[in-house]
Amino acid sequence: MRTILGLMNDQSDIRERVLDVARAAKRASRSLATATRATKDAALHGLADALVEHADEIIAANARDLERGEANGMKPSLLDRLRLDHARIDAIAAALRELAALPDPIGEVVRGSTLPNGLKLRQVRVPMGVVGMIYEARPNVTVDAAGLALKSGNAVILRGGSAAASSNEVIVDVLARALKAQGLPPEAIQSIDAYGRAGAVELMRARGLVDVLVPRGGADLIQTVVRESTVPVIETGVGNCHVFVDASADVEQAIPIVLNSKTQRTGVCNAAETLLVHADAAAGFLPPALAALGAAGVTIHGDERTAALVPEGVAFVAATDEDWATEYLSLDLAVRVVDSIDAAIEHIGTWSSGHTEAICTRDLRSAERFTSEIDSAALIVNASTRFTDGGQFGLGAEIGISTQKLHARGPMGLGELTTTSWIVHGDGHIRA
Amino acid sequence: MRTILGLMNDQSDIRERVLDVARAAKRASRSLATATRATKDAALHGLADALVEHADEIIAANARDLERGEANGMKPSLLDRLRLDHARIDAIAAALRELAALPDPIGEVVRGSTLPNGLKLRQVRVPMGVVGMIYEARPNVTVDAAGLALKSGNAVILRGGSAAASSNEVIVDVLARALKAQGLPPEAIQSIDAYGRAGAVELMRARGLVDVLVPRGGADLIQTVVRESTVPVIETGVGNCHVFVDASADVEQAIPIVLNSKTQRTGVCNAAETLLVHADAAAGFLPPALAALGAAGVTIHGDERTAALVPEGVAFVAATDEDWATEYLSLDLAVRVVDSIDAAIEHIGTWSSGHTEAICTRDLRSAERFTSEIDSAALIVNASTRFTDGGQFGLGAEIGISTQKLHARGPMGLGELTTTSWIVHGDGHIRA
Repeated sequence: MRTILGLMNDQSDIRERVLDVARAAKRASRSLATATRATKDAALHGLADALVEHADEIIAANARDLERGEANGMKPSLLDRLRLDHARIDAIAAALRELAALPDPIGEVVRGSTLPNGLKLRQVRVPMGVVGMIYEARPNVTVDAAGLALKSGNAVILRGGSAAASSNEVIVDVLARALKAQGLPPEAIQSIDAYGRAGAVELMRARGLVDVLVPRGGADLIQTVVRESTVPVIETGVGNCHVFVDASADVEQAIPIVLNSKTQRTGVCNAAETLLVHADAAAGFLPPALAALGAAGVTIHGDERTAALVPEGVAFVAATDEDWATEYLSLDLAVRVVDSIDAAIEHIGTWSSGHTEAICTRDLRSAERFTSEIDSAALIVNASTRFTDGGQFGLGAEIGISTQKLHARGPMGLGELTTTSWIVHGDGHIRA
Repeated sequence: MRTILGLMNDQSDIRERVLDVARAAKRASRSLATATRATKDAALHGLADALVEHADEIIAANARDLERGEANGMKPSLLDRLRLDHARIDAIAAALRELAALPDPIGEVVRGSTLPNGLKLRQVRVPMGVVGMIYEARPNVTVDAAGLALKSGNAVILRGGSAAASSNEVIVDVLARALKAQGLPPEAIQSIDAYGRAGAVELMRARGLVDVLVPRGGADLIQTVVRESTVPVIETGVGNCHVFVDASADVEQAIPIVLNSKTQRTGVCNAAETLLVHADAAAGFLPPALAALGAAGVTIHGDERTAALVPEGVAFVAATDEDWATEYLSLDLAVRVVDSIDAAIEHIGTWSSGHTEAICTRDLRSAERFTSEIDSAALIVNASTRFTDGGQFGLGAEIGISTQKLHARGPMGLGELTTTSWIVHGDGHIRA
């Protein structure tokens, strides 16, 4: 009984602490909302300078995380994502300076008119207020999120992966002190890592104090946040992306597109995970394409018709429905031969996560059908799926790629961290 | 044990039925997404014609709802909202024809560019897919929601209040048959009223099939949907709206604005619920303003400084904190004297639901501070709070007024029922 009461007290204690953090963030957000672009840009440069200045301290903290990660048997690819050195800190600081160079989204008049009764109406872009970020063990996300929030006039509450706890603690401390030195409230950048998973749960419930929550990481993390949150969430990043090679595809062009979509970088959400091939193109396209994929180290998970066309020496396993559903994030590719573009669209409608789908075709009607009948964030004709990216799209910095339809869809830049207010000026107008 | 298993079977049975409805809606949404404006507008006229044609049938079903309502002791104001007659059905049909006259949001190119590498990029407005509506006993909302969804290319799943169940059953049947007669899938307009509360819960959990859920009704309904849903929700309509009479206000102009904001219609979300008065204006403004409010039948819930200025014969009760938090939706008004515009902004920041706040002032700096420092959907200078409305703002039809910041804020029209796709055209582009 004492234990149960003890736990309850802990949880309600953590709730109060997280709510204190959120209230402080809300207060800080009011200063940021009215800060001028000049103030925010100067602060971004101040943050960048502070990171470079304190690089040794950050690297020392990061070494503790790496040591703990190794002791816990963390995979080399994850250890590499976690690792910070002087070059990486310089790059992170440079990204903050690039943010300063981007236009300020705040204050933009989205639309406006004078109504028939003379009321003057403007819809004006304003900050969200408080943005929550829940993410995994990549300390660069800590800085990116803080920078994007600052530029868009928002306070941010960060909950990073426990594997990067030491790094994030030092980074957030450096950033908050740098904000203060620039005359802005340090509570505009806060972490709740100290309150563990229970703290993250309280953040998800802080409706009214936190205006939007952006989870960034693996599918499990994102689904947990979606399920548990009462704060509005923007779902990001799970990418079960497809390339469809149509009957009319230019084989010389399609092979590099498939290869690039799958292998240019495998652990990312815009990498291709399934290749669909029109039956009429299969005999001409699949043997050279699978040979090229095999040479790049890709294992093919194929259906029966694909199996019949696999060149010798290419790693092959028979595909099951699970393969159509899987975001491998590795050198694996599901391959299926389909009888028509309708069957390709049907397959994508059934299995896709709604991120990015590409078609290789020379047929205008196929291109038109593919881009208008499929319900995904990005639809690409004759180019690699890897282009779905805020930087590639010219949006500047990116906070994530939304796979939901509400508020933002596809790459999210600064504008997606804002909302609008309607401002109405009258002269004694009343409603009849 | 048998009972528990029986209940479990019922719930899982209802889940399957609601998911079947949602899957059918998703399939229907694909036809609607590619329907031309001409097709959709013709269908809207078809729906309007069918309602008028079947008016007697609808009115007979409505009479059963009214009879049940009276037997259950439903309040006269709610009975009036529930009631349908020929004139009201004509008005509802006319609203569908007005929707047909509005521009089609679908297909709009929101932005586009040719990237430095030659990729051609367009962000195009597309339907959400499946829109869920959960609302109370107003059968006109059934038709409005179906019409807005149709015009914006979406399928809709409706869950109305049980008090209007008979009316809604007939209306949805009439609308779905009219859709079919126009060559569109009848599953684009479906109701889940038959599955009761358990069905509503399943609708809130149908993530991936339902793209957005719009609750419309009282605060309890909306909070339940926000808490229970894993489907993205747009929170609508709770309006604890304020009018602040600044030190410099023109009393002759401020009195009609306060009166109109409070009394023009009391049961609506954009009616004023609290009046804040600058201490320097109180002696000149409050006695005539409170007299006018009293004459209009308003009960004043005031602080001590207000109490000292209440004219004889005006109904007055001492205010508590609960009054600052209450959306009365009746002839009641909370009144507080504040020492400065800062105190007014602080009060609004503490108690407002973020819907609409108005200021009466002749001071430019007060107007600027009020409209830039307060975090609400609409900020109004020298006009009534009652103007926050899709029709008044010239947006055409309205599905609700969003009080959240994600996706939509303030009055929501057809555009707010859409999302976008990014369409990229290349010529063999791969990422370096």
